[in-house]
Amino acid sequence: MKTPTPKNFQVPGFKASGIACGLKKNGAKDLALILSTTPAVAAGVFTKNRVQAASVVLSRRTVKKAVPIRAIVVNSGNANACIGAQGMIDCKNLINRLAQELAISKDEILIASTGVIGVPLPPDTLTDGVPKLVETCSAKGMNDAAEAIMTTDLTRKTAVARFSIGKNKIVLGGIAKGSGMIHPNMATMLGFVQTNARIDYPTLQAALNEANEASFNSITVDGDMSTNDTFIVLANGQAGNKPIKRGSKEYAEFTAQLTKVSKSLAFQIVEDGEGATKFVTVKVTGAKTKNHAKKIASSVATSSLVKTALFGEDPNWGRIICAIGYAGVPVQPERIVIRLNGATLFENDNPTKHASMVSLRRKMQKPEVIIAIDLNQGKESAEMYTCDFSYDYVKINAEYTT
Amino acid sequence: MKTPTPKNFQVPGFKASGIACGLKKNGAKDLALILSTTPAVAAGVFTKNRVQAASVVLSRRTVKKAVPIRAIVVNSGNANACIGAQGMIDCKNLINRLAQELAISKDEILIASTGVIGVPLPPDTLTDGVPKLVETCSAKGMNDAAEAIMTTDLTRKTAVARFSIGKNKIVLGGIAKGSGMIHPNMATMLGFVQTNARIDYPTLQAALNEANEASFNSITVDGDMSTNDTFIVLANGQAGNKPIKRGSKEYAEFTAQLTKVSKSLAFQIVEDGEGATKFVTVKVTGAKTKNHAKKIASSVATSSLVKTALFGEDPNWGRIICAIGYAGVPVQPERIVIRLNGATLFENDNPTKHASMVSLRRKMQKPEVIIAIDLNQGKESAEMYTCDFSYDYVKINAEYTT
Repeated sequence: MKTPTPKNFQVPGFKASGIACGLKKNGAKDLALILSTTPAVAAGVFTKNRVQAASVVLSRRTVKKAVPIRAIVVNSGNANACIGAQGMIDCKNLINRLAQELAISKDEILIASTGVIGVPLPPDTLTDGVPKLVETCSAKGMNDAAEAIMTTDLTRKTAVARFSIGKNKIVLGGIAKGSGMIHPNMATMLGFVQTNARIDYPTLQAALNEANEASFNSITVDGDMSTNDTFIVLANGQAGNKPIKRGSKEYAEFTAQLTKVSKSLAFQIVEDGEGATKFVTVKVTGAKTKNHAKKIASSVATSSLVKTALFGEDPNWGRIICAIGYAGVPVQPERIVIRLNGATLFENDNPTKHASMVSLRRKMQKPEVIIAIDLNQGKESAEMYTCDFSYDYVKINAEYTT
Repeated sequence: MKTPTPKNFQVPGFKASGIACGLKKNGAKDLALILSTTPAVAAGVFTKNRVQAASVVLSRRTVKKAVPIRAIVVNSGNANACIGAQGMIDCKNLINRLAQELAISKDEILIASTGVIGVPLPPDTLTDGVPKLVETCSAKGMNDAAEAIMTTDLTRKTAVARFSIGKNKIVLGGIAKGSGMIHPNMATMLGFVQTNARIDYPTLQAALNEANEASFNSITVDGDMSTNDTFIVLANGQAGNKPIKRGSKEYAEFTAQLTKVSKSLAFQIVEDGEGATKFVTVKVTGAKTKNHAKKIASSVATSSLVKTALFGEDPNWGRIICAIGYAGVPVQPERIVIRLNGATLFENDNPTKHASMVSLRRKMQKPEVIIAIDLNQGKESAEMYTCDFSYDYVKINAEYTT
């Protein structure tokens, strides 16, 4: 699978830039700015890891205040995490410098970081980059920003969606980073979506929560969760639409479009897993509750035994039913049906007999694999997206040196 | 690490045998019998997987009845799981045939199976093996039984402990199988300990629960849990000791010895993980509760990123603190101290500076690695035992064909 990406995109009333300030030794871009020309509503979700970077602590706090936001500043190459009190000092220094340069309040700035942890930032490197960052900021800068937040990513990740509310044209455009399986220290995932829609904070946060659950919260690469994971949406209201209200059809449409953009970004992260040779969808239907469906999908999608079997192109239903069984959800094995790219592997408490293993294996050789699990116990469903588990995963993660 | 094993051992009043009945195509031993010459008390723990083999359902039921037990019959080469109603029929056929041959009641027999799942047993193969199994049963047969329960295990696993209660000499002897990371379908773990101690069912079950928690429940190889996991202890009382009562010092001693035997067997399973190059102990201290300590130890011991770093001999404290953070336990990062084979890696919210990375790396090159994590929040502790995650894990599990 290769998720299509826009060549370039603009979101009305937003500018962006990405520059090399010198954090990355190879001279690659490492500092990004997203700027709204007018104050925007911000919503966000952040890592649940108990060990959190200062930027996460700070941005979470600012988002909760529901104050207008003008800018997000992001550095890559150093996560500014696990280095004690210095982390917060460096965050505040960068914010202060940027507030000064943009002539806005420091409360209007959100911050995120990604990269190696436990290494103090070199003094002044980030702040010294601020003038150029602001100077180069333009409506066409989203791709530069997308590049500047990359760490071990092989591709920059962008997505865009457009729809109308009455006569008002709404644009949602996002950038993300994360390459899951390969990240040397951990798979930090960052996502930033900008929109010109008019929507208030609680409504935007609700839409973001829904979109996040179906996208970033539905992908797994190696089950590890970073200290820096951040997903923020800015809405500057410049489309001039009637404010989007919860429960309305406009809300449903906005959430669907935000989900589409978020899913596209999340899929690009899975596809960028180095060593990954397959895009895998685990689809659980017939569950009693949504939570049951997600737990089972997650258990199957994170099983090392299932993921190595996928790499080996082996239709190993046994590992799948085993992972279903230990998901901590009451299931009735005799009702479970397991299908792999349409072929039934297990049904009526028995593996399905196949006339030809050759055609079955051929189905596994496709770059996209859908594992469909019907529990036949209820009406709820959930999906998880992952990749297979290859030699390269071990190689890359074992050979990396702190 | 190489856990020492007894060359051979006998437990007073117990016999055993292991034969090749024809299930394994290579002619290796595949049917085992453990026999007590007098009725024994049985206690057991079984897989929590919702998908369970018929043998697990049956043995769990029999153990709960607290009836006297004479024999355990175990086959390898076929797990007799996920094949519908036929599984239970085949279990009962084997038990009935054995009951007839031994002239005992079928309620006095426990059963366990391990091997490939979803494949029906060939008719009569197991039952036809029963006469020879009974005929060869002897006090010296424990090693044969240990061999006959192996699947992908490279070594047979045995352990013995002896102590006295007053003038009565107590022996505990056990066998186990399980090779964790390499098992093609799943890592079924079986353990059987025999003792001549006199102890009643609730007391034996309590001692077993404690021993199991510190041994088989404290090892992890790839986090997958099998449909067939079983751990049974038989106590035939032939030592003639005063019955062991809960809370007594004899109970404490018996439980300590049972734990020692169980831990030895569990360690042998970790060591037999093919592709495993290191034996890893994750030791968490200073936790508020035992459950917190175990959750964190388990999170670190199952992290693919930590395990690949161990294979790469990289002192990657970042992956460790990250896995601590997502264990779902409230921690205070600034109090956490992480040590690796005695060298402090992280303290005071900062990575420790080391004069020489060379000496640090040398510590990692040992075949045994101890990751010690002090949370400095309380007085509870827990340990988990695991191995590293190598190329061979992926190779073996990807190349296996259903």
